[in-house]
Amino acid sequence: MAVRLVALYQQPEDPAAFDAHYRDVHAPIILRYPGIRELRTTRVAPVGPRSTPYYLQAEMVFDSRADLDAAIASEPGIESARDLRNFAMAGVTLYAIDDDATTSAEPSGAG
Amino acid sequence: MAVRLVALYQQPEDPAAFDAHYRDVHAPIILRYPGIRELRTTRVAPVGPRSTPYYLQAEMVFDSRADLDAAIASEPGIESARDLRNFAMAGVTLYAIDDDATTSAEPSGAG
Repeated sequence: MAVRLVALYQQPEDPAAFDAHYRDVHAPIILRYPGIRELRTTRVAPVGPRSTPYYLQAEMVFDSRADLDAAIASEPGIESARDLRNFAMAGVTLYAIDDDATTSAEPSGAG
Repeated sequence: MAVRLVALYQQPEDPAAFDAHYRDVHAPIILRYPGIRELRTTRVAPVGPRSTPYYLQAEMVFDSRADLDAAIASEPGIESARDLRNFAMAGVTLYAIDDDATTSAEPSGAG
């Protein structure tokens, strides 16, 4: 059904500058990826007593792993990788999630 | 709509033992969380030339952030946190994603 390229950005020193660069420069490059279906961005929130090293999660949705790999190797893919040094100096973790290979379980009891 | 508790497990020393413990012990505890709607687990895949520190992504879906917090504070929540030492010695990163607070964008051109 879908493969998600997940980018987890670490806490930036200047969140306002990060947000502005992501919105005005980085997201428009990503939306030029061939085959991209959707770009979803969400602020990461901590849970329980732990802090989280991450600030923003970006999910880039493709139809297949082949489309994802082609997007990364494309001209906008290379441009977006190069752009990371302009705003993601704190670091970013990238990985892929294949929703077709996901195991889903639901609780057996009532809600 | 939904709030996801995301757990990213780092590469275990013994993946087969990790998988067996997660499936047979840890997942059944999680499915006893009050208010949990779904547990989705997916093997993390690397992209491009980078490796990923993560092995497994688990997404626990709730109706609201309040339900998520209540689940973590519940008896199964405490039990699952205690169980981490039995199989997740390599480490785990936890955070929450509020799908209602997600910004979505689609490419303007044709697919």
